[in-house]
Amino acid sequence: MTPLCKQLGIEVPIIQAPMAGGITTPELVAAVSEAGGLGSFGLAYTQPEAMQRTAEAVRSRTRKPFGVNIFVCENAGAIEPSEQRGALDALAPYFDALGLKRPEAAKPPYAPDQNAQLEAIETMRPPVFTFHLGHAPADRIRGLREKGVKVGGSATCVAEARHLESLGVDFIIAQGAEAGGHRGTYLRDPYEAMTGTLAITRLVVRAVKVPVVAAGGIMDGAGIAAVLALGAQAAQLGTAFVPCTESGASAAHKAALIAAEDDTTLITEKFSGKPARGIVNRYMREMADAPHLPFPVQNSVTQPLRAAAAKAGNADLLSLWAGQAVPLARSSSAAELVAALCEETREALARLGQLRV
Amino acid sequence: MTPLCKQLGIEVPIIQAPMAGGITTPELVAAVSEAGGLGSFGLAYTQPEAMQRTAEAVRSRTRKPFGVNIFVCENAGAIEPSEQRGALDALAPYFDALGLKRPEAAKPPYAPDQNAQLEAIETMRPPVFTFHLGHAPADRIRGLREKGVKVGGSATCVAEARHLESLGVDFIIAQGAEAGGHRGTYLRDPYEAMTGTLAITRLVVRAVKVPVVAAGGIMDGAGIAAVLALGAQAAQLGTAFVPCTESGASAAHKAALIAAEDDTTLITEKFSGKPARGIVNRYMREMADAPHLPFPVQNSVTQPLRAAAAKAGNADLLSLWAGQAVPLARSSSAAELVAALCEETREALARLGQLRV
Repeated sequence: MTPLCKQLGIEVPIIQAPMAGGITTPELVAAVSEAGGLGSFGLAYTQPEAMQRTAEAVRSRTRKPFGVNIFVCENAGAIEPSEQRGALDALAPYFDALGLKRPEAAKPPYAPDQNAQLEAIETMRPPVFTFHLGHAPADRIRGLREKGVKVGGSATCVAEARHLESLGVDFIIAQGAEAGGHRGTYLRDPYEAMTGTLAITRLVVRAVKVPVVAAGGIMDGAGIAAVLALGAQAAQLGTAFVPCTESGASAAHKAALIAAEDDTTLITEKFSGKPARGIVNRYMREMADAPHLPFPVQNSVTQPLRAAAAKAGNADLLSLWAGQAVPLARSSSAAELVAALCEETREALARLGQLRV
Repeated sequence: MTPLCKQLGIEVPIIQAPMAGGITTPELVAAVSEAGGLGSFGLAYTQPEAMQRTAEAVRSRTRKPFGVNIFVCENAGAIEPSEQRGALDALAPYFDALGLKRPEAAKPPYAPDQNAQLEAIETMRPPVFTFHLGHAPADRIRGLREKGVKVGGSATCVAEARHLESLGVDFIIAQGAEAGGHRGTYLRDPYEAMTGTLAITRLVVRAVKVPVVAAGGIMDGAGIAAVLALGAQAAQLGTAFVPCTESGASAAHKAALIAAEDDTTLITEKFSGKPARGIVNRYMREMADAPHLPFPVQNSVTQPLRAAAAKAGNADLLSLWAGQAVPLARSSSAAELVAALCEETREALARLGQLRV
């Protein structure tokens, strides 16, 4: 137990990372929270009304705290269909391969309205709200905190951590380069803010006064003990929860994580338009130099492809989001995973207690 | 104390990383070893005769164990002067700026003969020998071990760790993407083997049976405690020792490390021909898309430039090797640094001992 655990009302310093795209089902979130950690929804691509239903679904399953996360990045403005041509043509062969109608030019809005999402969060009043890929306005943060919501944001460099602290967040997630999916970089070029978890956790802990959560490459209790040693007050794990029974990830995605024996992840912008880390597959290799649309347009355009590939069990054309420690992924229920993580953390702490330096 | 500490004959689980290019003076190495850690020489660019003198210099200062490291990569074969033209032209303005004679085409041999270096090591019999950027032949490893030398190699992915274990090394250095200077990747594309220290340490610890040393982004006792939590048996710190009084790094290099407030490092091939991490400066930015010669030819060609820039205190044209946690760099003597690291590690372990999960 750390001061942040008390603040968030959780029993163990484990946060199941909010992952967008249907991975974080109410069943997963509720199971993690019931087990004493903090289950969290990744609702970046979810419309406000559906966000409300999500909160109700988890509240009917548990009275424990849970978290909700959205993206607060600047989205691309309207793009003329003619300017989408090259990117759409690059995708066509994959749509053909899955027997799908070729993609048409996307029309705005390309993603849910972030202001409406923030309003939905004010109505939902989740126990914990975190934002990603940017910053929520300071007055929104203040308003949510006044309603009893604990608010956190993601930092991938010292500058972002200091900025988030100045906005009045309750805690900061120091997200290292190991992390799977979309990292939260917003003040720097994401390819120049690739600081590893060990380094960024320590840098952020030393740079700010608010509690820090570490994220990126943490897959077991040894990893949790390590970030506690760095001064983090909780660990946020995403990839570790993807293969859980209750996770909404596709069977092909889960199987790819379980099969990994080395860090075979790389970063691609070709699924969503923003850099995100996943296990390299045929799509990522072949598309490496192809044109793509900006976020969230590319995401919207590739959605049918990813959905069809998932349904067909075709891991070649699917976003296989994963962090760099993916070889440590395991199959279990969320409750079993949280229990194992706690037991391993205790073992690691006990082992460290024996060391004399 | 860990089993590896006993094996290496050191009192604290701290290895001062072997850094080539004159940083690891006999004074630095001896001071670290006298303080209970393992001082190490980076002799990648050192001729066999000079290697011998280095060992004598440290043995006259301490009876404690020390380490020696060389590169065992495949070096570039002879390159026609005409094929060097573009790379030399790209460098010319910087030579001009420092009033140096423009670089001429390099002639082989571009670097010391690695076989002769390995023979020098057999003669020197350093207590510890580590190799980097490849693997020493299994019979050399066996021969050195039979002479009582403890042998280790660097791995940046699971495949390299398993390969090194199969060659019979005593220990493996799991080197994360945070690390400054040249990382040891040799079986994969270095740009695709960018696994962070937290992830790679845990992956290697779980993949091999030999003891693991963690390296990359470790700058204080919290970082040391963190890698011990991951199962490493010692921490190897490079950047932390660069600003030490006894270090042979230039004043401009030391000052740049001390001034850093965020991770402003990136990877460049433009100094040596192989990717290496340093604080971004004018040379790195401007040269980003310029042609360069392969390792070690580019290193040999840029040597006068780097030497003159160092002498002139010009940090714009100097290789400012640094790991990603460089904002934690501090000025002190090596003995003070080792003492502070030990004290901080003890504090971190004691703090962890209080946690209940």
